[in-house]
Amino acid sequence: MTHSGWHEEFEQYQQRVNTGLEHQLQQLPALAPRLKDAMAYALLNGGKRVRPALVYACGRMLELKPDALDAPAMALECIHTYSLIHDDLPAMDNDELRRGKPTCHVAFDEASAILAGDALQAMAFEILASMPLQQGKADYRSAVISILAKASGYRGMCGGQALDLAATDKAVSVTELEALHRSKTGALLEAALLMPAAMAQLEPDQVARLAEYAGAIGLAFQVQDDILDITADTQTLGKPQGSDVLMKKSTYPALLGLEGAKSLTERLYQEALQALDALPYNTSSLASFADYIIHRNH
Amino acid sequence: MTHSGWHEEFEQYQQRVNTGLEHQLQQLPALAPRLKDAMAYALLNGGKRVRPALVYACGRMLELKPDALDAPAMALECIHTYSLIHDDLPAMDNDELRRGKPTCHVAFDEASAILAGDALQAMAFEILASMPLQQGKADYRSAVISILAKASGYRGMCGGQALDLAATDKAVSVTELEALHRSKTGALLEAALLMPAAMAQLEPDQVARLAEYAGAIGLAFQVQDDILDITADTQTLGKPQGSDVLMKKSTYPALLGLEGAKSLTERLYQEALQALDALPYNTSSLASFADYIIHRNH
Repeated sequence: MTHSGWHEEFEQYQQRVNTGLEHQLQQLPALAPRLKDAMAYALLNGGKRVRPALVYACGRMLELKPDALDAPAMALECIHTYSLIHDDLPAMDNDELRRGKPTCHVAFDEASAILAGDALQAMAFEILASMPLQQGKADYRSAVISILAKASGYRGMCGGQALDLAATDKAVSVTELEALHRSKTGALLEAALLMPAAMAQLEPDQVARLAEYAGAIGLAFQVQDDILDITADTQTLGKPQGSDVLMKKSTYPALLGLEGAKSLTERLYQEALQALDALPYNTSSLASFADYIIHRNH
Repeated sequence: MTHSGWHEEFEQYQQRVNTGLEHQLQQLPALAPRLKDAMAYALLNGGKRVRPALVYACGRMLELKPDALDAPAMALECIHTYSLIHDDLPAMDNDELRRGKPTCHVAFDEASAILAGDALQAMAFEILASMPLQQGKADYRSAVISILAKASGYRGMCGGQALDLAATDKAVSVTELEALHRSKTGALLEAALLMPAAMAQLEPDQVARLAEYAGAIGLAFQVQDDILDITADTQTLGKPQGSDVLMKKSTYPALLGLEGAKSLTERLYQEALQALDALPYNTSSLASFADYIIHRNH
């Protein structure tokens, strides 16, 4: 696939999930307007929609219909968004800017931000519980819900965020940093691939290849984030440049040097492509996605 | 059923859900020990387990096996516990005592408390997604998950908590107070009945009777809470007596007078019994439960 072909495909996925999320929010009654506004503010603030795009790309590769993929794509973005709202809170990373705009607790208030995150997590599971089934397939809803719940809970994202907080202001090794990111960001990216895999009832060895691919791009994603925190300017990044350094967070460039970090992303990119090579599908979109991950500049 | 008979039954349910929750926590790896400790601290702090008891009592009435009821009972308590952790945070109700012990953010720290709540919500859905099915029944897992997700999200508990925050320091009417509590506490109590009803594939008119019963006891539960906040001492209550008054929260005794509030609980009790009368089951446990709700002293 050409680079511009993937770019177009990615944009379609972004638009599709944005339309779906707007529709979900419209369906909420006016019961608690400030809470609804806080949820909409955080959910529709122009995120890159990397995880939903991965759901659509993987699902398309496995010949699932886009209609069936909307629910896991939206649910994953709800979980991701809630985690950003809570991570930005004063008691956590205390960030005031996100994608160039005030974070949720700054634009609203802390209580609304906590509740908006909580309600978005519930919404993710509500969306999945009522997802349409594909004709001729067994009921895969509880399998998909199980994947997302594990990925976002103690064993996944929440556990990773706890490790991240524990690692602040401390010297950590590359191994510890990898374990931290594998759960903090890796788990949700993996879920983006495992949810469509469960829906398509993929064989375990093929699921393992997808998990390898996810592990490699998940880590590459984080290393690239760390690199951009040093090299990109605040405007491109949408958050203060160098904010990791200010927070005394351990980063890959700090541990490996900038060049070392860059060659790590290259190695992870090759690992991701090798995992795809073992799959009997047209993996060109997922390969382009890996390329995007390590070459993005914001 | 005699009062002591129900008392014994309630204790069995409490023990059963406690054992189940301890087992769930034991299964978590040591990945993030502080987060795990915070989750366990909040989840196993001697709560009354009102919601799980209601799941077991309703499920037993509908002839479901206790094994099948463990998952919804535990999941509901995970959601309830996470909501207490987050409600107690400084940005929300700023409570330092819960059931006579320091609240989670006081015993640990705010970040751990936020994350423990988040991880407990994910755990609730993880438990439901892998619940065992009953022989001969259709897969009811996504129906049960849908009920819990709706009850705990924007349309239910989170929306109610947002209304509660908006109502602090403000004059509210009895109608507004009822709407607030119907979502804040009523929604989860209703879910305790609707989850077993979905598992037993109950007819819609019988589900409606259970929802009426839930609405009445849910509100009675809250009115009794408000009464106890005035009449019980701090030791019996496990939190500072009069804390609602200090927070300038609208309460039923404030709006209706103490006697007016007491006669409201009596009226709601009769409503609950009437709803049960219309059901073709042995409703004695649920009737005893309603009696417990309005006669409890803590």
